[in-house]
Amino acid sequence: MLIQPDLSNQRLTRAVRGIDHTGKVQEIRVVEERPLTIYLNAQEIVTAMTIGDYPEYLAVGYLRNQRMLLPDDIITSVDFDEEVETVVVRTERKTDYEEKLKKKTRTSGCAVGTVFGDMMEGLEDVRLPATPVKTSWLYSLTHQINTMPSLYLEAGAIHGSVLCREDIPLVYMEDVGRHNAVDKIAGWMMLEGGTAGDKIMYTTGRLTSEMVIKTAMMGIPTLASRSGFTAWGAEIARQVGLTLIGRMRGKRFICLSGEDRLEWDADVTAVRGEPSKAVRKGGKP
Amino acid sequence: MLIQPDLSNQRLTRAVRGIDHTGKVQEIRVVEERPLTIYLNAQEIVTAMTIGDYPEYLAVGYLRNQRMLLPDDIITSVDFDEEVETVVVRTERKTDYEEKLKKKTRTSGCAVGTVFGDMMEGLEDVRLPATPVKTSWLYSLTHQINTMPSLYLEAGAIHGSVLCREDIPLVYMEDVGRHNAVDKIAGWMMLEGGTAGDKIMYTTGRLTSEMVIKTAMMGIPTLASRSGFTAWGAEIARQVGLTLIGRMRGKRFICLSGEDRLEWDADVTAVRGEPSKAVRKGGKP
Repeated sequence: MLIQPDLSNQRLTRAVRGIDHTGKVQEIRVVEERPLTIYLNAQEIVTAMTIGDYPEYLAVGYLRNQRMLLPDDIITSVDFDEEVETVVVRTERKTDYEEKLKKKTRTSGCAVGTVFGDMMEGLEDVRLPATPVKTSWLYSLTHQINTMPSLYLEAGAIHGSVLCREDIPLVYMEDVGRHNAVDKIAGWMMLEGGTAGDKIMYTTGRLTSEMVIKTAMMGIPTLASRSGFTAWGAEIARQVGLTLIGRMRGKRFICLSGEDRLEWDADVTAVRGEPSKAVRKGGKP
Repeated sequence: MLIQPDLSNQRLTRAVRGIDHTGKVQEIRVVEERPLTIYLNAQEIVTAMTIGDYPEYLAVGYLRNQRMLLPDDIITSVDFDEEVETVVVRTERKTDYEEKLKKKTRTSGCAVGTVFGDMMEGLEDVRLPATPVKTSWLYSLTHQINTMPSLYLEAGAIHGSVLCREDIPLVYMEDVGRHNAVDKIAGWMMLEGGTAGDKIMYTTGRLTSEMVIKTAMMGIPTLASRSGFTAWGAEIARQVGLTLIGRMRGKRFICLSGEDRLEWDADVTAVRGEPSKAVRKGGKP
């Protein structure tokens, strides 16, 4: 695994004191939430609320997923200033972000979601490769990701997105917003390189239009989640040829797009149930 | 109960065909996700992705929670046009939204979250009333809300927010984004009136800074959730005097702010466990 949750980073969680249902004082660990202001060249673009790790990947991935950075843009520097909580991404040529800033769309995540520009822009040309997906990979990935030490298991209230190849988790990002976790993966892909057509994106969050569009724009042909679907998310997945698998729990899953790419090699009777500690709920008990 | 999930509204979910883990064709119901463009007078403000019910409440509540509408603004009309998917909110006096549109902050929900203006603006003057909260209300509300027929139980992948008084759920809103669900409640409060100081906001989502700020700005002194906390959410709750209760599961909860307002009247040994069907996870199995 190339990047996994860094539980030794003390900046990501904080001990907070409260009382529990018996009236007893409890100290619990909760995740941090910090502002990070992203600049593209001389232009301030947005202030993101983030857990605070991998600010450079977050900035580059955000700008890439908003199509403010194009695949052929040459990034000359990415500077994070911890004290003033900013990242400045500089490119060789001028970018056309002013136009994007005019049009705002609020997406359907758990926050006041806004993307700049037309959400569907560029999507009409996307045709993802028909990469096969073995069902044994899906079960193996779910088991590995759910049982791996993570900030989620430590502090709850956080989303995870994992870039995988076959049954191997490669890059595991967590953040208070799942959009941030996906953007960090996009930033990693843009800065560290690598192919997209052989990858699987695993997310703990719901398969909304936004998640489907981001994954498709990154060139990743498979998106899997333990959570559910929206109708528009499923529709876009079919349009761009993305394999969309949701409601993955224990032996179960539902595939709403790209079902012809599934290879049924798993012995379902041998699939382990989920350890109760690893069952994701709205938050950690 | 004044408003509860309307399961007879066929516009909110759609039957979609896919295959399950055994390769069998399955038809499942999934929630809709539609664009809704909100105008304030002649100005286009934002396009929200929403499940599509209560567009008028969503528009008014969004504008109110962004402080583009002030408490003393007089709304002269709210017009929803289903065909072009727009809501136009008109006010007697001109509003200062242009200034707000300049500054964008991306919040930490599950989507690309953006609020306009300074998130903390107006918060320094907020001091919420020290309304007592009986622990029996918390258990009763959790049980009622989790077992009530809802789009969540029918189709998953949706958040709920419920405005309550004592142990009575009053207004239950659901949406693909929990920010929308809360905004619909804010819109209902602004248009239908009623006091805020005696209310409890229950949410299925995480207690991030955004949720705490919205609840406080609405004048509601108590915020409860089955999900977890962020550090900044807890910090703001203490600053404004909001009673903040999270990780509510079965007998358990954690209170990180306002613990002196809790009245310990519940017999914890009598608290029922949650029926497995009502246990909220990342999505519905």
